Amino acid sequence: METYRVLFHIDEGSVARANTVLHNIQNLIDDLGEDTVDVALVANGEGVRAVIKSPNVHKGRIKRLAEQGVRFLACANSLRFFGLTEDDLLDPVDVIPAGVSELVKRQAEGWAYIRP
Amino acid sequence: METYRVLFHIDEGSVARANTVLHNIQNLIDDLGEDTVDVALVANGEGVRAVIKSPNVHKGRIKRLAEQGVRFLACANSLRFFGLTEDDLLDPVDVIPAGVSELVKRQAEGWAYIRP
Amino acid sequence: METYRVLFHIDEGSVARANTVLHNIQNLIDDLGEDTVDVALVANGEGVRAVIKSPNVHKGRIKRLAEQGVRFLACANSLRFFGLTEDDLLDPVDVIPAGVSELVKRQAEGWAYIRP
Repeated sequence: METYRVLFHIDEGSVARANTVLHNIQNLIDDLGEDTVDVALVANGEGVRAVIKSPNVHKGRIKRLAEQGVRFLACANSLRFFGLTEDDLLDPVDVIPAGVSELVKRQAEGWAYIRP
Repeated sequence: METYRVLFHIDEGSVARANTVLHNIQNLIDDLGEDTVDVALVANGEGVRAVIKSPNVHKGRIKRLAEQGVRFLACANSLRFFGLTEDDLLDPVDVIPAGVSELVKRQAEGWAYIRP
Repeated sequence: METYRVLFHIDEGSVARANTVLHNIQNLIDDLGEDTVDVALVANGEGVRAVIKSPNVHKGRIKRLAEQGVRFLACANSLRFFGLTEDDLLDPVDVIPAGVSELVKRQAEGWAYIRP
């Protein structure tokens, strides 16, 4: 287990918000070191736009963060709501049944929560 | 005591934001089951608009969530600031002295925090 | 150690958002008492605007909150990004290497998290 475990939460669809969140995650890893921190990004609501294949200006950065061990988790309820499927998501992204449940369960296990 | 306890926090006044928060809560209960999770929504700042009697497009949904055990808590400081009283709030809503204190005290007791 | 410890997080640059956060902090201290609660405000991203010397409509309030023991912490990564230095910040503000790391480390020590 890493020393620190952190949930980032994105539920807004703007490019600016996704940019902030991804920037935050990279800063965290650069500062603490990728062996010291486990990071998961939970995307729900319009936040799922951040992890779709297209249009997506953040592809390269998401790929690089995934290579550093960041988990990208998209809410199945939200995908259904927007008519999206797993095929519409970038490769490193996993689908979870409900974004909010993930946020609740991991906090109960001691994960920190950051909502940029 | 339920298995999970979760604070949702709303402090913005738009219909879209309230919609997101209420949607999140219903998704959480649908996923975890209402006997497994305790939910409280703390509304402060402009977020108190989400729980007033009128205008309120979310009345029906708030009533149904209250029937599933969700607690709706409105900040007295914020109500005073906007010239509102307990009479202006929907039936299931309780007034608390300070929204932020509620968020702090419950987190200290182990509640998770989600800020949609 | 105080009874409660609370992190506030600001990462948006609008006057309205800073106003909300500072209002929240004062309400918390008024309600719980300054000897009962430790408060730190972590400013990163555009949120660092809230703690610069000029332009800043919140100067007086930040000074008064600092006198009540509130710590103001600005992210060095964000300052660098905006071309700002420690000299550009209000007196009570301290610079930390990375805002997100501070949020993670303090939560791991039991601090509550509020994102207005």
